[in-house]
Amino acid sequence: MRTLNVALGARTYPIHIGPGLLQRADMVAAALRTPRAAIVSNDVVAPLYLDAFLAGLAKLGVGTTAIVLPDGEAHKNATTLDAIYDRLLAERCDRTTTVIALGGGVIGDLAGFAAATYQRGVPFIQVPTTLLAQVDSSVGGKTGINHPRGKNMIGAFWQPQLVLADTDSLGTLSDRELSAGLAEVIKYGLIRDLPFLEWLEANIERLLARDAEALTYAIERSCANKAEVVAADELETAKEGGRALLNLGHTFGHAIETGVGYGQWLHGEAVAAGTVMAADLSRRLGWLNDADFGRAVGLLAKARLPVESPAMGADRYLDLMSHDKKVIAGRLRLVLLKRLGEAVTYADAPAAEIRAAIESCCV
Amino acid sequence: MRTLNVALGARTYPIHIGPGLLQRADMVAAALRTPRAAIVSNDVVAPLYLDAFLAGLAKLGVGTTAIVLPDGEAHKNATTLDAIYDRLLAERCDRTTTVIALGGGVIGDLAGFAAATYQRGVPFIQVPTTLLAQVDSSVGGKTGINHPRGKNMIGAFWQPQLVLADTDSLGTLSDRELSAGLAEVIKYGLIRDLPFLEWLEANIERLLARDAEALTYAIERSCANKAEVVAADELETAKEGGRALLNLGHTFGHAIETGVGYGQWLHGEAVAAGTVMAADLSRRLGWLNDADFGRAVGLLAKARLPVESPAMGADRYLDLMSHDKKVIAGRLRLVLLKRLGEAVTYADAPAAEIRAAIESCCV
Repeated sequence: MRTLNVALGARTYPIHIGPGLLQRADMVAAALRTPRAAIVSNDVVAPLYLDAFLAGLAKLGVGTTAIVLPDGEAHKNATTLDAIYDRLLAERCDRTTTVIALGGGVIGDLAGFAAATYQRGVPFIQVPTTLLAQVDSSVGGKTGINHPRGKNMIGAFWQPQLVLADTDSLGTLSDRELSAGLAEVIKYGLIRDLPFLEWLEANIERLLARDAEALTYAIERSCANKAEVVAADELETAKEGGRALLNLGHTFGHAIETGVGYGQWLHGEAVAAGTVMAADLSRRLGWLNDADFGRAVGLLAKARLPVESPAMGADRYLDLMSHDKKVIAGRLRLVLLKRLGEAVTYADAPAAEIRAAIESCCV
Repeated sequence: MRTLNVALGARTYPIHIGPGLLQRADMVAAALRTPRAAIVSNDVVAPLYLDAFLAGLAKLGVGTTAIVLPDGEAHKNATTLDAIYDRLLAERCDRTTTVIALGGGVIGDLAGFAAATYQRGVPFIQVPTTLLAQVDSSVGGKTGINHPRGKNMIGAFWQPQLVLADTDSLGTLSDRELSAGLAEVIKYGLIRDLPFLEWLEANIERLLARDAEALTYAIERSCANKAEVVAADELETAKEGGRALLNLGHTFGHAIETGVGYGQWLHGEAVAAGTVMAADLSRRLGWLNDADFGRAVGLLAKARLPVESPAMGADRYLDLMSHDKKVIAGRLRLVLLKRLGEAVTYADAPAAEIRAAIESCCV
């Protein structure tokens, strides 16, 4: 087991990474304020892990409530959130009850936002079971739901007490979900860690083959990168760079997710295609050369991720992107690549170049 | 104009109290992060003050969006909250747009929770126009909405950048609303400020006659009391006393509000009747004598507040109270009076005495 601390002053918390952690009810119980927990999961993850997880906690005297939601991004909305509130109230969960997310990123976002807002905030623990959730949403405290007018538009920052990332749980992921997680892993290399990008180029086949050692290394290095960025800019208030850099490919990607309808593309797939757009725009601005661009696209493709985006027309993309949270005072602030391993936020890309990048990446 | 600072470290903010503050668009504009604001009000307050308020901001170059909601506690719910989100998104408000609450406590709670959760949090300003909002919700950062299963069950702590309490706006309050505000004013005397309680006994008629000088003094002293309590226990995490003391009469009062249906009783009216129950229980525990009890009830009655509660049966009260956020690990923690001017939190009141207090205060 490897342990990483996310340094956030009084809200500092540990991320444990390794095999067998789903069996460590003792670690969960030790982090509870009172021996009472509400476990939020979904109907894909629950049949695999929930009963054993509950039994482990019960053996230690923890009273539990299980809340099993329908799977998928399409359910990350106000209706599902209210279903969580309703169960917490019906079961008389109080302000000391800990909410535990057992599942992927959608479950983490939903359960985390419920924890942030139930009775004005209760303790929260993350047990991410997908690669995407382990390398992304388990660090940083972003929680929230989608709104019909935009993705992740409603939410809060709410830090967990503890994260347990069990690498065994990756064995049950579909190939498609594994690849979607790798999109965010590759992102850390592209935005701030060239040596890691090179390691990924050399080891992508081991990751796709679910080599445990390679996965543990990639998860730990990803979380370490994200933890450094988050510690320096917890609430994403930095005017330049900072936490916003983690959104490489996300503004384009969110437009894809919204444009084709939530849940059609996996988040990581949309980020991959969006990253290609961002890289193409970076090339048009003269920051990446053709070889750099080819390396970025090549690695994403080797990870079996989509590198072409759906043709919706540049106008539709720009309209969807204008709703993005990265819009400040009406200006679209994009995350682009100065070079491989170094991202910047940039609000001055000419509209014609943005359009050209979009058009050339669509099929 | 009097100014009071709520000391919360980096989140410290000023409360200005006095006449003519609704005309001080300059003070609002100076507190904005970018010249963009969404003003949330209701259909009772908006016809009185909104146009002039918007015009003042427009003159200073501030872009505004007005969101006018139906009036009343019955609308403090997820549906109205979503109407706010929808307008903010439709008008493309971004993360730097300031949400301004112009209205009473319901508007402050709704707009504040929208500000806390829109795009994971945007700046917030309060312009409370009722006595209740000026002495209660303008200090402390509690925001939220009701859930069908309980009052204020969903919410967040979110501090404003600025509070403007214009005493002129109290001139348009109904007598019933003025009295409801006085319930919270009297509360500060009862829980921690015996000299203020004595001042209120001597000056209650001036307050009912809306004497401007008396009102300004009562608002400032109330806010000062609340600010001291909040500064010492911002997130209501103190195990004993602390911020919970502000809830004198509220656990009983919430049961009344929920039991008779949201919006039938004003919040302050329910608090008054609930305070009588708490005082009666304090007497049964031997902490207040009959004379003390009589003074508390007498002052509330002189303020034209209800001192008798609706007969719903003790079982129904206890059931509704068991959903209260003051329940910790299954135990009902009540705010009671050790003596006039000194409240305590207490979880050991015998059930029989609680029942007796409830029954004897119902008609």
